[in-house]
Amino acid sequence: MKVILDCDPGHDDAIAMILAASKISPLDIVGITTVSGNVEVEKNTLNALKVCDIIGLTDVPVVQGAARPMVREPEIAEHIHGETGLDGPNLPKTPKRTAISQHAVDFIIDQLHQSEEPITLVPTGPLTNIALALVKAPSIKTKIKEIVLMGGGTFGNWTPAAEFNIYVDAEAAKVVFQSGIPIRMFGLDVTHQALATRETVEQLREISNSVSEFVAELLVFFMQAYKDYFAFPGGPIHDACTVAHLIDPSIFEFEHVHVAIETKGEHTYGMTVVDRLAVTGREPNAYFATGLDQEKFWSLFKKALESYSD
Amino acid sequence: MKVILDCDPGHDDAIAMILAASKISPLDIVGITTVSGNVEVEKNTLNALKVCDIIGLTDVPVVQGAARPMVREPEIAEHIHGETGLDGPNLPKTPKRTAISQHAVDFIIDQLHQSEEPITLVPTGPLTNIALALVKAPSIKTKIKEIVLMGGGTFGNWTPAAEFNIYVDAEAAKVVFQSGIPIRMFGLDVTHQALATRETVEQLREISNSVSEFVAELLVFFMQAYKDYFAFPGGPIHDACTVAHLIDPSIFEFEHVHVAIETKGEHTYGMTVVDRLAVTGREPNAYFATGLDQEKFWSLFKKALESYSD
Amino acid sequence: MKVILDCDPGHDDAIAMILAASKISPLDIVGITTVSGNVEVEKNTLNALKVCDIIGLTDVPVVQGAARPMVREPEIAEHIHGETGLDGPNLPKTPKRTAISQHAVDFIIDQLHQSEEPITLVPTGPLTNIALALVKAPSIKTKIKEIVLMGGGTFGNWTPAAEFNIYVDAEAAKVVFQSGIPIRMFGLDVTHQALATRETVEQLREISNSVSEFVAELLVFFMQAYKDYFAFPGGPIHDACTVAHLIDPSIFEFEHVHVAIETKGEHTYGMTVVDRLAVTGREPNAYFATGLDQEKFWSLFKKALESYSD
Amino acid sequence: MKVILDCDPGHDDAIAMILAASKISPLDIVGITTVSGNVEVEKNTLNALKVCDIIGLTDVPVVQGAARPMVREPEIAEHIHGETGLDGPNLPKTPKRTAISQHAVDFIIDQLHQSEEPITLVPTGPLTNIALALVKAPSIKTKIKEIVLMGGGTFGNWTPAAEFNIYVDAEAAKVVFQSGIPIRMFGLDVTHQALATRETVEQLREISNSVSEFVAELLVFFMQAYKDYFAFPGGPIHDACTVAHLIDPSIFEFEHVHVAIETKGEHTYGMTVVDRLAVTGREPNAYFATGLDQEKFWSLFKKALESYSD
Repeated sequence: MKVILDCDPGHDDAIAMILAASKISPLDIVGITTVSGNVEVEKNTLNALKVCDIIGLTDVPVVQGAARPMVREPEIAEHIHGETGLDGPNLPKTPKRTAISQHAVDFIIDQLHQSEEPITLVPTGPLTNIALALVKAPSIKTKIKEIVLMGGGTFGNWTPAAEFNIYVDAEAAKVVFQSGIPIRMFGLDVTHQALATRETVEQLREISNSVSEFVAELLVFFMQAYKDYFAFPGGPIHDACTVAHLIDPSIFEFEHVHVAIETKGEHTYGMTVVDRLAVTGREPNAYFATGLDQEKFWSLFKKALESYSD
Repeated sequence: MKVILDCDPGHDDAIAMILAASKISPLDIVGITTVSGNVEVEKNTLNALKVCDIIGLTDVPVVQGAARPMVREPEIAEHIHGETGLDGPNLPKTPKRTAISQHAVDFIIDQLHQSEEPITLVPTGPLTNIALALVKAPSIKTKIKEIVLMGGGTFGNWTPAAEFNIYVDAEAAKVVFQSGIPIRMFGLDVTHQALATRETVEQLREISNSVSEFVAELLVFFMQAYKDYFAFPGGPIHDACTVAHLIDPSIFEFEHVHVAIETKGEHTYGMTVVDRLAVTGREPNAYFATGLDQEKFWSLFKKALESYSD
Repeated sequence: MKVILDCDPGHDDAIAMILAASKISPLDIVGITTVSGNVEVEKNTLNALKVCDIIGLTDVPVVQGAARPMVREPEIAEHIHGETGLDGPNLPKTPKRTAISQHAVDFIIDQLHQSEEPITLVPTGPLTNIALALVKAPSIKTKIKEIVLMGGGTFGNWTPAAEFNIYVDAEAAKVVFQSGIPIRMFGLDVTHQALATRETVEQLREISNSVSEFVAELLVFFMQAYKDYFAFPGGPIHDACTVAHLIDPSIFEFEHVHVAIETKGEHTYGMTVVDRLAVTGREPNAYFATGLDQEKFWSLFKKALESYSD
Repeated sequence: MKVILDCDPGHDDAIAMILAASKISPLDIVGITTVSGNVEVEKNTLNALKVCDIIGLTDVPVVQGAARPMVREPEIAEHIHGETGLDGPNLPKTPKRTAISQHAVDFIIDQLHQSEEPITLVPTGPLTNIALALVKAPSIKTKIKEIVLMGGGTFGNWTPAAEFNIYVDAEAAKVVFQSGIPIRMFGLDVTHQALATRETVEQLREISNSVSEFVAELLVFFMQAYKDYFAFPGGPIHDACTVAHLIDPSIFEFEHVHVAIETKGEHTYGMTVVDRLAVTGREPNAYFATGLDQEKFWSLFKKALESYSD
C-alpha cells in the first residue's frame, strides 16, 4: 500500500515513521513530506532526515513543504517537543543527505498524478500541504485512496476546544474535510488512549536495538513534557496511531460521522465538530476513531521495534 | 436554604421541582419562575402550576418570565417533551391557580433585594430570566449565593457542540458566566450519567403514591423520546441533578474550571467551552460536575418520592 | 405626536431634547429615558435632569434605564463628551428634581401599554432599553408607531465599520432591527452632514437667550473634541437629526433598505450593514437617511432656539 | 517597469490588459496569469488568450492559475460578464496559442525569484494566486515592488459590505493585506467613478481601429449588465484603474490607511475594513484610492486606444 507520510517530527511523528518503515509494515513509503507545525519546517525537515538516518530509511525522498499555514501566522509547540522539535535523544548534528529540491506540495501532486494506483496520505501535522495540493491541483482527488490523519477530537489540547494540528491551520483542515475524499481521523479521544508509560520505556530497553533505544529516549522526554504541561501519567503517541491502523486495521474502532471545522468561533477556532449523536443531519465524511485494543496496539508497537536489528 | 427554581417544565424540570419540594429537601422554595425553553413560556407556566397541584406545592408563587431569548429567535424542543411540554401523564386541563402577575425578571430582582440572606438560583432552562435580571439590576449580584444550573457540557445534544438550554440563549449564558457570580454547572457530561431506565420506573411503581406514579409516567414518555431520538437506553433526568446536589452535596464530583460561552462560531454557537486541561490560563469561574455516585443519587431520588404520601 | 426620548446626554442628545421641547415642536414628550452610553447611565440621567431645568421642561418624567449593554461590557465615550458627559457649559451641580423611581424599561412598556395611540420611540443612544423592553414585553410592538433612531451608517466612528451607539450594544440593535417595527435611521452618512461650525455658534449667540447660549457652549466643546479626535471642521449634531425630522419631515431624504446588524465579525462588530444596492434580496426594514436640506435644517434649528425666551 | 497581470477577464480585466499593452504604456508585461473569478479559470484563460490575439500581444506568456479559492467554494459572476466571461464582442472560437503548461502560482514565484529588479503585481481578480504564491514561497516578498490591485472598498457590490474580488477569496485577501508588502488598492469608492457611458462608446467608435471597436463592444455589454443589475448609468471599468495609475501616477488620489479583511462576519464576510478616520491605531498597510481626475483618466484611456493601429 503506497503512502505519503506528511509530518512535522516531532516525537510522535518520528515514532509513526519508525512503525511505517519497520519490517512488519506493508506500507510502501513513497515520500516523507514536512510542514510547519511542532516546530519550524526547516527543523522538521532536518528531524525527518535524521530519523531516516537512524532507521536506515535512505531510499525514501524527504521533501520540505509549507513554512506557514494557509491564512494564519504560524504557531509552534516548542514547550512539548523542545527547541529542536525532537529534544531528548542525542541526534547527529547533520543528516547524511538533504531534502530533495521540490516543494512538498508539488511532490504530492506529482506522485499522485504519476501513480497508477491511488495513494494513501498520512498527515500527522497541520494539513497545510494537503490543502494547498488540493487547491493547486483539484484533479488529485481521485488519486487519493484515503487521508488517514492525526488531528482534532471532541476536545482540545491547544485550546479547550481545539487540538494543535487542526488549530494551527484550521483553514487547511476545512479544505480537507470538505473535499469529499475518504477520511480516517485519529483525534485526541483515541490518541490519549495510546499512552506510553515508564513501563513502555522499560520494555523498549529490553528490546535493546538502536532504534528501540532511540524511541525510548524520545519517550522519556515526551512523557516528561506531558507530565509537566498536562499532568498526564504518560505520553500519548498520537501520530503513531495512524500508521498502527494501516498496519493492522483491526486495532481501532471507528464511528462514521460528520466532522465540520470551526473557523469563525471566538473560543472554538480550530475545533473539529464531531457529530456523534447525528443531530445535524449531515452525511458522514470521516471515520472517527473512538477506541483501541490496548493489547494489540502495544504488541504491534513492540514487534515493529523488534523488527529493527543493528 | 432559599432557592428560586427557574425552569421550563419539561419532564426533568418537573422532577427537579418534585425533589425540591419533597420532605427530605432542606430547600426553601421562594418561587418558581418560568422561561421559554422546552416549549413556549405560557405552556411551561401551565405545566409548573399543574405540577404544583399534583405535589401539593400550593403556597409557592409561580411567576412567568421571558417569552423569548435575549437576542435570537426562540427554538423549542417539542420532539423531546411533546406538544404540551409535559406529554405522557394524564394532567388536569386547568391548574387550580394562576401565575402571579409580576414578570419573573422582576420577581427575581425583588426577592433578591428583599431577602436578608443570599438566595441560590437554580436555572434548569435557558438563562434568559437570570441574564435579564442581571442586566436590569446589576446590584442583585451580591445577593445571589450561587447559580446552580443545568446546561452545557463538553459536547452537545442540540448541535454536536451545544446543549439545548445554552444554545437557545447563548447570549444570556454569556452574561451569566461572565458575571463573577459563583456557578455550579451540571452539563451533559454528568447528566447523561443520571439515566433513568425501565428499572427506575419499576422501582417508582413499587413506591406507589400518586407522585411516584406521576414521575413514572413522565419517565416512560421521556425515555421513549430519548430512545427514538438519541438511541439512548434510558432518559437522562438532567435538571434533577441540580436539586439532588443541593439536597446532598456529596453526590457529585466537580472540577473548578473556566467556562467560556461561544456566541460567534459557525458550528459551535452555544457551546460551553470548558477548560478542563487548564490551557487558557483563565481563572476558573464554575464548578463543573464530572461524575456522580450512582447509588447515592438514585437512593436520594427514591427517598424523595417515598416522602410524598397520598 | 407622542414620543419617548431615549438618550444618553451627551451634547447632541441635549440638543435633540431642546429641539423636541421647543415651541415650534409638535411633539408630546411622554418621558425622557436614559441609558448607559456616552457616559455612565447615572451621569446621563443627571445631565437629562439638568437640561430639563435649563429649558424649563419640568413636567416630563426623566427615567433611568440600563446601566450596561445586554451582553457586552459597557464602553463609554468620555473623550468626546468629557468626564461629565456634558462638559463645556457651566451646569448646576444638582438638578432641581430627581428621576422617577421606575426603571426605564418598565416605563417604556407601561406607557406603550397604557397609551391609546401608538408612541414614537426616539433612541439617540445605545438601543439597550428598547431591546430589553421588546424582550420583556413583546406585546408592545403593536403600540410603537416608529423607532426614529440615531445610530450606525455605512461607515463607523468607533471602529472603521461601526458607529458608537450601535457598537456599544450591537445585540440590542439586532433585536430592534429584526423586530419588524418601522424604523427610521439617522446614521453617520447623514449626521456628518449636520455639521455645526463656528458660524453656527455665532448665530446662536446672536439669538441670545439662555438656551441658545447653553447650546453655543455645548457646541464649542463638542466642535473642539471633533477637531482633536477626528480632524473635523465642525461638530456633527447627530442626535438632533431625529427630532428635526419629526418636526419637519421634509428636511431629510431616505432610502428604504434592508439593514442587518453584524454581531460576529472580527473587524466589523456593531456595523449596520445597509443594503443600498439591493443585492441581498431581503425586504427593506428601515428608512435610511441619505441627505438633508441644509437650509431647512439650520433654519429649523435656529427657529427652535429662538422660540425659547428667558 | 516589470508587471505581472493576474486577472480573470472579464470585461474590465480585458480593458486593463489593453491599456497595459498599448504603445503609451511603459509597462513590461512579464506574464498574464489567470484565476477563477468572474467565470471559471479555464474560460478566463481562454479569454486572456483571445484578447492577446486581438491586440497582438503574442510574446507574453499566458499562464493558468487557481481553479478555486483557498478555502471556500468558488462563486462566479456570470450575470455581469455573461456565460463566456467576455460576452458582447464576436470573439474567435479558439485562440491562436495556448497557455504555457506551468501553474500561475509557480510562474509568479519563478519570475520573482529570477528577476533582478522587483516586479509589480497587478491582480484584478480574486487574490488566490498571489496568496498561494506567498504561502508556498514566502521569500518572494522582497522581490515584489508593490501589489496594485482592484478589490474591496468601503462598501460592496456582491454583498452590501463586500466587493466581488475580495469576497470570492477573502482568506487570500487576508494573506495579502497582512503580508507587509506595499499595497495600492483600487476599490469601489474610486472605480465607480471610472464610469464608461454611451458617450465613451461613441468616442471609441470615432477612434475606429479594431481594438477600440472591440472595447466599444465590451462596454456596450458591460454597461447593459450594470444597468440591469445595479441601475447604474454606465459601466465602471474597475480593473482599468490599476493600469491607468501605473501609466500615469498623477491621475488618482490616495489615503494611506490600514485595511483589514473581515473573514468571520455573518453579514460582512469579505469586507475590506478601511480605517479612514484612523480610529484603530493600526499602522497603514495600503494606499487607498479615493478619487480620480476624470479628464486625465479618460484622456489616457483614449490615447491608449488610439495607439493601436490596424
